[in-house]
Amino acid sequence: MLAELLPNDVDGAIIISNENRRYFTNFVSSLGYLLVTRKDSYLLVDSRYSEAAHKQAENCTVVKFGKLSDDLCDIIKQNNLKNIMLESASFTLTECAYIENILDKAGAKAVKSDELNKIINTMRLYKTEDETEKMHTAQMMTEKALTETLKLIKEGVSERNIALELEFRMRKLGADGVSFDLIVLSGKKTSMPHGVPDNNKVKNGDFILFDIGATYKGYHSDMTRTYGFGNITAEQKRVYATVKQAQQNALDTVREGVMCGEVDKAARSYIYHAGYEGYFGHSTGHGVGLEIHEVPSVSPNSDFRLHSGMVITVEPGIYLPDNFGVRIEDMVIVSNDKYINFASLSKELIIL
Amino acid sequence: MLAELLPNDVDGAIIISNENRRYFTNFVSSLGYLLVTRKDSYLLVDSRYSEAAHKQAENCTVVKFGKLSDDLCDIIKQNNLKNIMLESASFTLTECAYIENILDKAGAKAVKSDELNKIINTMRLYKTEDETEKMHTAQMMTEKALTETLKLIKEGVSERNIALELEFRMRKLGADGVSFDLIVLSGKKTSMPHGVPDNNKVKNGDFILFDIGATYKGYHSDMTRTYGFGNITAEQKRVYATVKQAQQNALDTVREGVMCGEVDKAARSYIYHAGYEGYFGHSTGHGVGLEIHEVPSVSPNSDFRLHSGMVITVEPGIYLPDNFGVRIEDMVIVSNDKYINFASLSKELIIL
Repeated sequence: MLAELLPNDVDGAIIISNENRRYFTNFVSSLGYLLVTRKDSYLLVDSRYSEAAHKQAENCTVVKFGKLSDDLCDIIKQNNLKNIMLESASFTLTECAYIENILDKAGAKAVKSDELNKIINTMRLYKTEDETEKMHTAQMMTEKALTETLKLIKEGVSERNIALELEFRMRKLGADGVSFDLIVLSGKKTSMPHGVPDNNKVKNGDFILFDIGATYKGYHSDMTRTYGFGNITAEQKRVYATVKQAQQNALDTVREGVMCGEVDKAARSYIYHAGYEGYFGHSTGHGVGLEIHEVPSVSPNSDFRLHSGMVITVEPGIYLPDNFGVRIEDMVIVSNDKYINFASLSKELIIL
Repeated sequence: MLAELLPNDVDGAIIISNENRRYFTNFVSSLGYLLVTRKDSYLLVDSRYSEAAHKQAENCTVVKFGKLSDDLCDIIKQNNLKNIMLESASFTLTECAYIENILDKAGAKAVKSDELNKIINTMRLYKTEDETEKMHTAQMMTEKALTETLKLIKEGVSERNIALELEFRMRKLGADGVSFDLIVLSGKKTSMPHGVPDNNKVKNGDFILFDIGATYKGYHSDMTRTYGFGNITAEQKRVYATVKQAQQNALDTVREGVMCGEVDKAARSYIYHAGYEGYFGHSTGHGVGLEIHEVPSVSPNSDFRLHSGMVITVEPGIYLPDNFGVRIEDMVIVSNDKYINFASLSKELIIL
C-alpha cells in the first residue's frame, strides 16, 4: 500500500493524475483529488461524480466537495496532517499554488519532490492478474481488428484510411480507444520510426508497418507487425529475417532478474553484427500499463532488473533511410524463468 | 505580439504547451520549448522535429537541441536574460524544477505567476480570419458527418455506435479528430448534461441529443442539436420550443461591447419565465478556438465584454430529471452590430 511506502517525514500525499487516481481507487473521472494518509484515503470529487464514486470507488472514503478548499482543509485538520507530498509530474504551477493555499489555511506544508511519483511508478511496475487480463483483452481486440483490416488492403489504399478503419474496428469491438495515434506506414515511410500516416498510398513492393494498440478499461496494448505487399526483394527479406531473429534473441533473455541492458544488447548486437549498425537508433522497449510508456526503459546499458509481473515491450527495428524499415514488437510479462507473450499473431514474413 | 505585452520586469517567456507553441509558430509538435524575448523568438526542438520545424515554423529561429540544458542556457546568456516567465498552467513541478535548474546555470530566474497565461489567453480571444476559416472547415465537417449519420438511425441503434459512426465520418472527411468525446444521448439520458454514450438504444418517443464537434488544423468546432425520434409528446415540443427561443434571444444580444452576463441572462430569464427555473444548471456558453473551452465563460452576472473577433458558443438547455432534456448550441463570431453563425443546420424540431 502507498501509505506504508511514504517517507517517514510526511503524513500524506495528494494525487490528481487520472491514471494514478484510477490505479488506487479503480474509479474513473476527469477531475478529483485523492488524499492518502497513513490511516485512510479520501477521494474528493464534485457533484458530477459523487453518486458513481460512492458506488464504484474502492479503498477510500468518497467526499463530495462543494468548495474544495473548505472540504480538503477540514480533512487535513481532522487528521492533523502537516507535510503532504504532491505528485510532481502532474501538478502544474497553477494547481500547486491553489493547493498550497489550501494547505496553508489547514496549517500544512506541501512537499514537492519527485519522490511520490517514483514510489507510485515502482508500485505500478508489478501488474496484478486483473491488470494483465485487461491488457490481454486490449491485445485481443487489437489483433482481431488488425486481422479484419488486413483484408481491406489493396494497391492505392492510403495509410490514413487503413489507420482509420483499424481504429474504427477496435472501438467496435469494445476498446475504450487507441493506445496512441495508430502508426500505419508504407513504402519508404517505413524507414521513419516516428512517421505519421497520411495520404501516402500502398503500392507493389512495399513493406507496410503497423505499430498499434488498443486500450481496455484504461490498460494499453502495444504491438508492431511489418507485412510485405506484392513483390518483396531479397534485401527486404534479409532485413526482415534479421529483425525477427534479433527480436527473438531479446525475448529469449527475458526472465526474473535480468537487466534491461542485457535484453537490449541481445537484439542490438545481432543487428549490428548483421551489418546494420547505425540503422537501429531507438531503445529495444519500455514498460506498459495504464500508460503507454512506463518505466523501465529497455535501453542500452540499463542496469534496471526485470522482475516477475513486470510488463515490457520488445521491439527492435532496422531503418534504411529513403528505402524501407522493419520493426517487430511484442508485449510480454516477465515470469520466473521466461516471458509470457501477450501477442499471438505470427511473426513470419507475410505477403498481403 | 507577445514580446510587447510582457510585463516590464521580465525579459522573456518560455512556452511549452502544444496549443500555445502552435499558436505563436504555426508549427505542430508533441515536444518543444518556445523562448520569447523582447527582440526574438527561439523554438527549440529535438532531432525528430528539426527538419520540419526549419521548413514550417513561423516568427521564430529554430534551434535543434542535443542537450536542452546546454542549448537553452547558451541562448539565455547570449541574450542576457535575467527574469523569465513560465506558463504556469502548463509547467508541471517536475518540468519547472528542470527548467529552473537550467535558468540557474544561465544566471536567470523563473517568474512563476499566472500572468503569462492571462496575457496569452487574452491574445487568443481575438480570432484572425485564418483561424475562423479553420473553425468554419471544422464546423462544415461536423455538419456533413452528422447529416450522413442521421440517415443510419433506426430503433435499437445504440448511442455508442451512433457516436462511433459519426466520428468515423468526420475523420474520413479530413478532420484531425473530435473536439471532445462526442456526446450522443437518447431517451432519459438526454436529461444529463454530462452524460456519456453507452449501449442505451434509441426507441420511439426519444429525444436524441448530439453535442459534437470536429477539429481541423488544431481548431475546434462545437454544436448541439436535439432531434425527435418517432412520437414526440406535447411537453417535449413545448420544452424544445422554449430552448429554441431562449437560444435565439441570447444570440440576438451578441454584438461588440455586450457583457457575457447579458447574453446569459437573455437565455436564462426566458427559460425561467417559461416555468423551467432550476432545470438549466450550466452556463450559456464559452469561448472556443485551439481549445474547446477558452475564455470567456458566458455565465450569469459576468461583466466580461465581448468584442469583435471573439468566438463563443450559445447553448442553453432544459433538463427534466429522469424524463428528457433539450440543448441547442451554435458557435458564433462576435461582430460590430451582430453575430455571425458558424452553424448552418436547421434548429426547427426535426423528427427522424
